[in-house]
Amino acid sequence: MTQSFIPTVRTLMGPGPSDVNPRILNAMAKPTIGHLDPEFIRLMDEIKGMLQYAFQTKNQLTIPVSAPGSAGMETCFVNLVEPGDKVIVLQNGVFGGRQADNVRRFGGEAIVVEQEWGRAIDPAALEATLKEHGDAKIVSFVHAETSTGAQSDAKTICEIAARHGCLTIVDCVTSLGGSEVALDAWGADAAYSGTQKCLSCAPGLSPVSFNDRAVEAIKNRKTQVASWFLDLNLVMGYWGEGQTRAYHHTAPVNALYGLHEALVILEEEGLEQSWQRHIDNHNALKAGLEALGLTFIVPESERLVQLNAVSIPEGVDEAAVRKQLLTQYNLEIGAGLGSLAGKVWRIGLMGYASNPKNVLLCVNALESVLSQYNAHINKGVATAAIAAAYQ
Amino acid sequence: MTQSFIPTVRTLMGPGPSDVNPRILNAMAKPTIGHLDPEFIRLMDEIKGMLQYAFQTKNQLTIPVSAPGSAGMETCFVNLVEPGDKVIVLQNGVFGGRQADNVRRFGGEAIVVEQEWGRAIDPAALEATLKEHGDAKIVSFVHAETSTGAQSDAKTICEIAARHGCLTIVDCVTSLGGSEVALDAWGADAAYSGTQKCLSCAPGLSPVSFNDRAVEAIKNRKTQVASWFLDLNLVMGYWGEGQTRAYHHTAPVNALYGLHEALVILEEEGLEQSWQRHIDNHNALKAGLEALGLTFIVPESERLVQLNAVSIPEGVDEAAVRKQLLTQYNLEIGAGLGSLAGKVWRIGLMGYASNPKNVLLCVNALESVLSQYNAHINKGVATAAIAAAYQ
Repeated sequence: MTQSFIPTVRTLMGPGPSDVNPRILNAMAKPTIGHLDPEFIRLMDEIKGMLQYAFQTKNQLTIPVSAPGSAGMETCFVNLVEPGDKVIVLQNGVFGGRQADNVRRFGGEAIVVEQEWGRAIDPAALEATLKEHGDAKIVSFVHAETSTGAQSDAKTICEIAARHGCLTIVDCVTSLGGSEVALDAWGADAAYSGTQKCLSCAPGLSPVSFNDRAVEAIKNRKTQVASWFLDLNLVMGYWGEGQTRAYHHTAPVNALYGLHEALVILEEEGLEQSWQRHIDNHNALKAGLEALGLTFIVPESERLVQLNAVSIPEGVDEAAVRKQLLTQYNLEIGAGLGSLAGKVWRIGLMGYASNPKNVLLCVNALESVLSQYNAHINKGVATAAIAAAYQ
Repeated sequence: MTQSFIPTVRTLMGPGPSDVNPRILNAMAKPTIGHLDPEFIRLMDEIKGMLQYAFQTKNQLTIPVSAPGSAGMETCFVNLVEPGDKVIVLQNGVFGGRQADNVRRFGGEAIVVEQEWGRAIDPAALEATLKEHGDAKIVSFVHAETSTGAQSDAKTICEIAARHGCLTIVDCVTSLGGSEVALDAWGADAAYSGTQKCLSCAPGLSPVSFNDRAVEAIKNRKTQVASWFLDLNLVMGYWGEGQTRAYHHTAPVNALYGLHEALVILEEEGLEQSWQRHIDNHNALKAGLEALGLTFIVPESERLVQLNAVSIPEGVDEAAVRKQLLTQYNLEIGAGLGSLAGKVWRIGLMGYASNPKNVLLCVNALESVLSQYNAHINKGVATAAIAAAYQ
């Protein structure tokens, strides 16, 4: 007979999921109501409103897709890409590659502009590509590359794309709530995110937002969307206004309770305050890690504050260190992904997990474990460096 | 400032979601762990094993898709249907129609065999269709039609399909856990279900199962699967055996805690005992509803025990009755769907919600409210009929 599952309590400082605020865990345990209940309709409306705040947009079509972030990505591509469409994908990490894969699966032609991993996207590369491919319909890129810890200039990229008449699809999975996302100010046409990063929710939902230009493109498609579950023409009927709602699929009610509470918490703190908190804790973590002698792979001006990729000291078995952190301190940090596998650790300071306690724990746990592995690090200086950074 | 959402406590006796066992709600509130954590790998393995028990199958590829039931449906169709494939869809309700829509979206040709709504599928109609369409690759149908309350003979349908060399896709959304599902004994090749019906979980996950023949078909596709999120060639790598797991998407950790607990509860009760409980409570509900004078739309031998569709008495405003049940008794029952909209109520007795307390509440609440609407019903006799049925 299988026993009930009782998870060990971890501190989640990887690339996500990040630690979930207990208020959100409690919200998910509230009794389930029907997905057509009038109270549920109110829940949906409030979530839409708060997501508009988080994305800094007036876009009517701002909703959570009922599945994880990669389904949010797919929602953008399957609805906007039609067979034969040319899509310029600016790739500077793993998740840009996934965008290109999406384009191809929906019959589009992906023009992949390879950028250096660990760097922001170079807007000049987009300008040059658009000169060559004047018939491109869409430009897609990742605002905050979770695989490398680099942040790109979304506003400039969206402006260039718009000037050439292209729609933009922006991956905001790791940025939403943790650093400035401003869809309307950017002029972004479509964006997707996840709940398990800086919103500190459990994984499983993907907030998306589409402006009128994107909605028009979807409504005027020449071909049917190659998905029933993610077809926004149907989903819009369900997440529409007031009494016009038509049953589409059964929404994940309890997961939405959690997202609602996460967004209430974000409202309470305030977006700008949340961004500043992520900056402050990043600066302290940086001070601590650099005091140990660890180095960031991303140039300072292009770094994400919520996801810190650092090189692994020479001669260290990186997997053994992560395992030790997990077993001894119940602390999870992330491994490298794609071409950075085995070369970096990825340390997240996302949402609820972005706090001084975690900064102190992570840096000192690393000092302790790296000492056991005889890594050449500076001992006994990190805590003071962190303290100084917070002053 | 938006306030935290505190749902009213309802009794969910619609077509799903059904009432969630508090043990499952508590499980979902447990602290989130990483989706690559060794403890999470154990959770995945245990869920796979318990789902094999629920589906009565040895199929290795038996997993929960990280999205609601309609994504489970899409997982079956997007992976098994290739452009040009002929798929025979046996439709006797709303959800068969959705299967046909799926077929077309993935480039297949749907041969829809229309059956009477409210009746089981006639196997002879499949025989006849297969004689005409000997080149069909797949036969799909709904085992338990949630829109009508009819149950079909899955074993016979699968046997006919196999005899003609067709793969089968079976919708077990409403049947799994509530009435006999036996994929291996049926010879079903692919099946999908949902968590919010007879498993009494929150909505948001979709258990699916594929046998070796289906897996071979997926591996030998000539075209790439038109979805990244649902491509089983990728998902298999994540839900694979032991240490070979490759990161695909971020699994909905807390929702999986809930499913795990639901399956532990099912194991504790035993599958056969759960089926019998659903039969017993259905018989009591039937006795009570018939004592009131209400009539079922499905012939007795073809009825689902977990979803009861009854005709609306003449002159009654069906929406007003449902609203009154919800506001006065916090009781949710379901409206009709598709061509049955406005003609029936759908009363669920699913999973945890299939119990004598709910039977008594529902029948007597209906008596109370229908009396207010001056419907011609028999008063004061339902409780005795229910009591007799339980004896």
